[in-house]
Amino acid sequence: MQKSTNITWHGAIVDPSERQAVVGQKGAVVWLTGLSASGKSTIARRAEQLLLERGAMVYVLDGDNIRFGLNKDLGFSPEDRTENIRRIGEVAKLFADACVVTLTAFISPYRADRDKVRALMPEGTFIECYVEASVATCEARDPKGLYKKARAGQIPEFTGISAPYEEPVASEIVLPTADQTVDESALALIAFLQEKGFIKAL
Amino acid sequence: MQKSTNITWHGAIVDPSERQAVVGQKGAVVWLTGLSASGKSTIARRAEQLLLERGAMVYVLDGDNIRFGLNKDLGFSPEDRTENIRRIGEVAKLFADACVVTLTAFISPYRADRDKVRALMPEGTFIECYVEASVATCEARDPKGLYKKARAGQIPEFTGISAPYEEPVASEIVLPTADQTVDESALALIAFLQEKGFIKAL
Repeated sequence: MQKSTNITWHGAIVDPSERQAVVGQKGAVVWLTGLSASGKSTIARRAEQLLLERGAMVYVLDGDNIRFGLNKDLGFSPEDRTENIRRIGEVAKLFADACVVTLTAFISPYRADRDKVRALMPEGTFIECYVEASVATCEARDPKGLYKKARAGQIPEFTGISAPYEEPVASEIVLPTADQTVDESALALIAFLQEKGFIKAL
Repeated sequence: MQKSTNITWHGAIVDPSERQAVVGQKGAVVWLTGLSASGKSTIARRAEQLLLERGAMVYVLDGDNIRFGLNKDLGFSPEDRTENIRRIGEVAKLFADACVVTLTAFISPYRADRDKVRALMPEGTFIECYVEASVATCEARDPKGLYKKARAGQIPEFTGISAPYEEPVASEIVLPTADQTVDESALALIAFLQEKGFIKAL
């Protein structure tokens, strides 16, 4: 005896507006792009902390939780960088669909790759955030000694030194990190999300 | 002038207990496994709806949002099935880390693949849910006509017909869908989450 005659019943896909009402915010992807040591991950983590303190649903995708997990099979060749960004874009899209404000912090040096992620997302929900700092600025910081190694030829295809970085041309947000503190950058990002109605006003 | 002297400041990674307090629940992965037409997706979507009505943060990963996105480069060979499940496991882990109750609905026929996902997750947060229905039961339902096509040899490597399904041996939840309705299954799943303290009692 098969009781579950409605086993093929569908239409239970939750409506986005219903989910937004429950969660109390709209999903978005804030895509931080910039050179190594420009401040992407630090700003994303600080913004995450401040958003959580406001009770927002927020999550950061960065090298720490992507490179050692989902994308551990990928290297740094142009093809692998493209696939890296593609997968991150798809995951960020799922998070945004779940109404989470999703901050991604990856160099993402190719304009075409970033634009492909934008094209995946519902209109207006992809927010490119250029974490702007020159090679000279980043190289002076060099917290992990990567620029030094790259100059010494010990890291092949290092963005800004031996691999290209294609600067954004029309980012929704620009954060010039040589001229502002981490908190100033994080708060500017949060102000944008609030202005656009993704999160509630305080 | 570089203002942001603390650009390398870290330690802003949000503590899991802090996030749980804000979100009001604990993250978990409920991994639904079973044959095609056993009821995985239908149960997951119904449970999602019921959990959202309770104000819980919940999200479903299934063929609809994975096969056409993140895993669109993968087919149905044994290698591709394994990579399919690996990536889904990594994404589900991220969602659970964000404190979302994550329901996955994939055949996931290989025991080793399911156990690899379990091993990824923090202890006790992977909940295998066997959506139990025999080949005969599923073939009698056959809502998409896939079993018919598989019998006719039009779908190679079809689980239960021409490719193996390795039954779970120690699932946390078993839902015998020939003997219970979709709502009964969804409510049993939710009761488990509540009993184990992932979501609040009503």
